[in-house]
Amino acid sequence: MAATDDSMSDSVQFFEGVEKLLEIWFTSSDNNSKCADLRKIPRNKLDTLLKIVRCEIISFCRNEQIDAYVLSESSMFVSKRRFILKTCGTTTPLLCLEPLLLLAEQYAGFTAVEDLFYSRKNYKRPELQVSPHQDFDQEVALLDTIFPDGAGYCLGAINKDCWFLYTLNPFPEKIIKPTPSPESDQTLEILMTDLDPDIMAIFSRDECLNAAEATKKSGIDKIIPNMVIDDYLFEPCGYSMNGIMKTGYYVTIHITPETDFSYVSFETNVSTSSYREIITKVLDTFLPGKFVITIFANQTSQAKGSSKEMQYLCKIGEWTRRDMQLCQFKNYDLTYAFYSKFPS
Amino acid sequence: MAATDDSMSDSVQFFEGVEKLLEIWFTSSDNNSKCADLRKIPRNKLDTLLKIVRCEIISFCRNEQIDAYVLSESSMFVSKRRFILKTCGTTTPLLCLEPLLLLAEQYAGFTAVEDLFYSRKNYKRPELQVSPHQDFDQEVALLDTIFPDGAGYCLGAINKDCWFLYTLNPFPEKIIKPTPSPESDQTLEILMTDLDPDIMAIFSRDECLNAAEATKKSGIDKIIPNMVIDDYLFEPCGYSMNGIMKTGYYVTIHITPETDFSYVSFETNVSTSSYREIITKVLDTFLPGKFVITIFANQTSQAKGSSKEMQYLCKIGEWTRRDMQLCQFKNYDLTYAFYSKFPS
Repeated sequence: MAATDDSMSDSVQFFEGVEKLLEIWFTSSDNNSKCADLRKIPRNKLDTLLKIVRCEIISFCRNEQIDAYVLSESSMFVSKRRFILKTCGTTTPLLCLEPLLLLAEQYAGFTAVEDLFYSRKNYKRPELQVSPHQDFDQEVALLDTIFPDGAGYCLGAINKDCWFLYTLNPFPEKIIKPTPSPESDQTLEILMTDLDPDIMAIFSRDECLNAAEATKKSGIDKIIPNMVIDDYLFEPCGYSMNGIMKTGYYVTIHITPETDFSYVSFETNVSTSSYREIITKVLDTFLPGKFVITIFANQTSQAKGSSKEMQYLCKIGEWTRRDMQLCQFKNYDLTYAFYSKFPS
Repeated sequence: MAATDDSMSDSVQFFEGVEKLLEIWFTSSDNNSKCADLRKIPRNKLDTLLKIVRCEIISFCRNEQIDAYVLSESSMFVSKRRFILKTCGTTTPLLCLEPLLLLAEQYAGFTAVEDLFYSRKNYKRPELQVSPHQDFDQEVALLDTIFPDGAGYCLGAINKDCWFLYTLNPFPEKIIKPTPSPESDQTLEILMTDLDPDIMAIFSRDECLNAAEATKKSGIDKIIPNMVIDDYLFEPCGYSMNGIMKTGYYVTIHITPETDFSYVSFETNVSTSSYREIITKVLDTFLPGKFVITIFANQTSQAKGSSKEMQYLCKIGEWTRRDMQLCQFKNYDLTYAFYSKFPS
């Protein structure tokens, strides 16, 4: 999204659409924590936490499985033991890590981090970021002070488009065995740049009166049907939406529509044995010039076979694959792919 | 190897065993170049080239397929259209790139680079390197000035053990179609650190009179039999060997034996449908604490299935896999894996 205050000026102020995405799974070392729940953290504590990140809550919806927040810079999802914070612009999500771990212990009853994923695409303008987010080495250095078994990866070409990930990689002998059948989990992200200007125009107050109109006109409501949608259209332009389902699945889309730095991110944890249809719908909805796809799937996920499926997708419509990498982590397989149109 | 001049001193002078590995495949845009051959480059021109790299030829053997040089810092292999330069210490192989491309045109008849691979493990002491090899960003910047379609990758954990690669990644539509059935090609590298001190002791003048004795005593001659071996034992310690076969296959091993910074590299282009036996023999010969494996295989290679084989090798003997990544490049599949013993 692009919450620029500069609408009256002739020059369009740059906005970094690329998000920093933090996902943490909590657990407890003791077994008497069945009632541990991150949603017990009081709202005012979340507000304070987000001040450290340099953003705030602007909308909220929930169901029995998940609390979904639209933020001034992207989104936050809180469920029983999973915390997701996705923030764009010049926000500083890693600064909230230690206070968050304290809140999780004090209010939610969680004493340990079972898994952690911090990821982002390369910024369009890294020089505008603030510490500790100026480069990935700096982010890794901060995370390393908290997690002794953390590992930082760069997927894709470091001198072109790429995507950074920090996750926990303890020696297998050191891992505390998870529950006998760990819950199935998967995440698809599509990070798009150089988008179709006519489509991007939808996400401005010039073309749509409100978020609902933009959601419908763009076809976002049809990508994954039957979601409860909480959407927001920024002034003068920019768009965010959270969609949630009773099953606990979520979708989140964030749009920076300005032509010079257009960026759209799509993310969902919907479970499916093939992401091909969702990917095609997302691409047809936004028509990017290029995009990164990442898919995480654990061993009990329906999406477990998606790495194999992606290997054969050398082309998707008019987009050609330029990079393809697979990584095996302790609980998850990760597929990374980068596609672009032939430069015209 | 460890060609330290500091043998009389009490303190052992650090030596960076980690090699920079440059492999270039040449071609010609015109078709009347069947007699093009890199081995036409005169020896004195190679000597001058290696001065730029800060190393020199110390031994040489050849057969009809390949010229194999042992260098003061590692090895060089020259065949009809493939040039391999592997140099350790504080050598500067990327500085010889432009002069090499000129020599390939002037003397060998090659006008274009078909493929290029520049790779290395992370250094043990990066601060001792000289420009343009002080960090991977610097190396990429230099390569980018020569190759517009180059892409730099980091495999493995950037804050732990990792391996850097720069290769050409042109848009598929831009690739000039290769010969109908491209020659089969594959490369296995095993880069080992924290090696067994008793085995490392073999590679010193204290324990062996000459290279042949070290080759035999260590069992290096049995890893891949029926090679013509050109080996060299440095003073006071350190070891290099090239092995070549009439088929054009080569093996090269370089050993920095000092306990504080022990390092052994093994590389071969021997073709096989399974590298498991070779890997096991190499590990049993050197007993490393940890190691990186990389396997490149193109579509016509027997080794094409090795990425699948490696995926299931979570353990090799007492070594546990910590990282596993697959990459698809335009002509090659790459498998990267990192293994270590459980820290004692």
